[in-house]
Amino acid sequence: MTSSDPATPAGAEDLPKSFSVHAVTGLPEFHHGDDLVGHLPALEDRDIVVVTSKVISKIEGRLVAVGDGEEERQRAREDAITGQTVAVVAQRGPTRIVRNQLGLTMAAAGIDASNVPNGVIALLPEDPDASARRLRAAIRRRLSRDVAVIITDTVGRPWREGLVDIAIGVAGITPLRDLRGTLDTHGHPLAVTALAQADEIASASELVRGKVGSVPVAVVRGIPWQDGEVAASSLIRGGETDMFSLGTRDVVPATASGAGAGIAAPQQIEAALAAVPEVDGVSTSYAAATIAVHSRIDSFETGVYVGKLLVALRAEGLIGSVASRDPVQIETTVAAAYQGRPVP
Amino acid sequence: MTSSDPATPAGAEDLPKSFSVHAVTGLPEFHHGDDLVGHLPALEDRDIVVVTSKVISKIEGRLVAVGDGEEERQRAREDAITGQTVAVVAQRGPTRIVRNQLGLTMAAAGIDASNVPNGVIALLPEDPDASARRLRAAIRRRLSRDVAVIITDTVGRPWREGLVDIAIGVAGITPLRDLRGTLDTHGHPLAVTALAQADEIASASELVRGKVGSVPVAVVRGIPWQDGEVAASSLIRGGETDMFSLGTRDVVPATASGAGAGIAAPQQIEAALAAVPEVDGVSTSYAAATIAVHSRIDSFETGVYVGKLLVALRAEGLIGSVASRDPVQIETTVAAAYQGRPVP
Repeated sequence: MTSSDPATPAGAEDLPKSFSVHAVTGLPEFHHGDDLVGHLPALEDRDIVVVTSKVISKIEGRLVAVGDGEEERQRAREDAITGQTVAVVAQRGPTRIVRNQLGLTMAAAGIDASNVPNGVIALLPEDPDASARRLRAAIRRRLSRDVAVIITDTVGRPWREGLVDIAIGVAGITPLRDLRGTLDTHGHPLAVTALAQADEIASASELVRGKVGSVPVAVVRGIPWQDGEVAASSLIRGGETDMFSLGTRDVVPATASGAGAGIAAPQQIEAALAAVPEVDGVSTSYAAATIAVHSRIDSFETGVYVGKLLVALRAEGLIGSVASRDPVQIETTVAAAYQGRPVP
Repeated sequence: MTSSDPATPAGAEDLPKSFSVHAVTGLPEFHHGDDLVGHLPALEDRDIVVVTSKVISKIEGRLVAVGDGEEERQRAREDAITGQTVAVVAQRGPTRIVRNQLGLTMAAAGIDASNVPNGVIALLPEDPDASARRLRAAIRRRLSRDVAVIITDTVGRPWREGLVDIAIGVAGITPLRDLRGTLDTHGHPLAVTALAQADEIASASELVRGKVGSVPVAVVRGIPWQDGEVAASSLIRGGETDMFSLGTRDVVPATASGAGAGIAAPQQIEAALAAVPEVDGVSTSYAAATIAVHSRIDSFETGVYVGKLLVALRAEGLIGSVASRDPVQIETTVAAAYQGRPVP
């Protein structure tokens, strides 16, 4: 559908009357270089094969050796989390919600010490979309079956208890079922209705795979899917659309972290200035990466304003520092609380 | 399992080998007082009946009349959102993520103008868990079937594109499959593995129900469930475990909003003080709801510190205001940026 088409009429969704989800049981413990395709059950064309990222990690050798004992294991896990972390989003006690190198925001960067043998912990696959494409191609080549592949991981949610599975890699199936422009049965446009069908299928498959580790593969049969080349990484929300790039309680501490790298964009500075509640007697202007705060109020009150402004800058991904005092000049750079990596 | 039991051995999960999800098609448009049970297809004992909240809202008369025309419709929708809002979590342009009266955090408070007739918009059911229990009881009474019921709504996610369905009401089935204390197949404890199975089933059912509105009911068959009386509202994460009670960019603006109500708890004040980066020459103490900032640095720098502290207080759900200047004394109360409602 192009943007000039009339809205798709109601009923245009290609939905199944029913579908089924099947556990693939009896699989062996997998190791680096093992053959998953050879262990799959009979598949049908248009099946969706759903595989945990843990099995892919084992087959791809994404395991890190750790010492014996639960304590050493946990310390190695903490180190691995730090290594995979691109940005700490929120931290509260021992819980670290981070954005990892795949762009996924999850607790512990997706590093997992369960369902792996003693002496190792598992990193996520290096490129789960590529892993999914390889598995799909191997199934086509060796089993002559046209299937879609979804690779899953388990995540928490900010406002919901309990974990669910999501799709971190896909091949074949388009991750979003996009209904924007479609009319409902009453003729109203569905304004923002793009369904994350790959995540929903991942969640459905978890219900037969479970978490104790003996069922890492499921087959979903009966869901119509369009061939596509859109990666699961397209489901990652970032930039302007990420309203939760830092936790509520992490914005202020983040003002202390890291040096800046790169130049602040005007829209970031404008957003930060707009966020700070107005104070009578204070006006601001900016040129390039320098904000001038013109104040006719006393130094303390000006400082309160500047303190809030420094936090608002951090919320926009900027580091601000006070460079001069009359008028107050704040120099901004793009934040690099990203373990040394500049924001793209 | 009691807390003194040894960990459950691997394989203790009661997982199905397979399950199926069936669309219930051919349903009529429902109105206030209509009978849903009479329209259900043949059910089996231990089925899970999954129903959109929209249909429940229609049957329970949770519709608000609005004027003609898309513009008036949208304005009435905005008013309804405001009416259902307990706390604005994040706002960016026209998008409002709010916590609604049910405790659910979602865009637009769950108010929906799609899939309803002209002239009305739909509020969420007043108590979706109670609606689920009533429907379950009616099915048992009139159809003599022992089923679980899940009532769904569609939500976005902070770091994921696309929408998914979640469970906002349940009856019969326990919303969390709690594996804490269980061992994986390698003998490692599954530390934080409680699966939100009700949300996963809601997501699975969306794949046959779709979004254009003609299939509001699905039947899920083959998933073993334990009878329980735990409500879907138990899936709502709040209080200390909610790290995202405000959006990253919304913490600073929130310092300007609302009067306080209630008294700050010591742990909230301590958390706020701990969040502000340390400054040489500044120390703090507090008694009851008054924080004293003892500063040996100049007024401007003290002000910067206090500005950050006021934001950190807001991140903890507190409103701070400067009550005296030598030493700086900040009086705190619990925030009431909750449309006039005190925080419980």
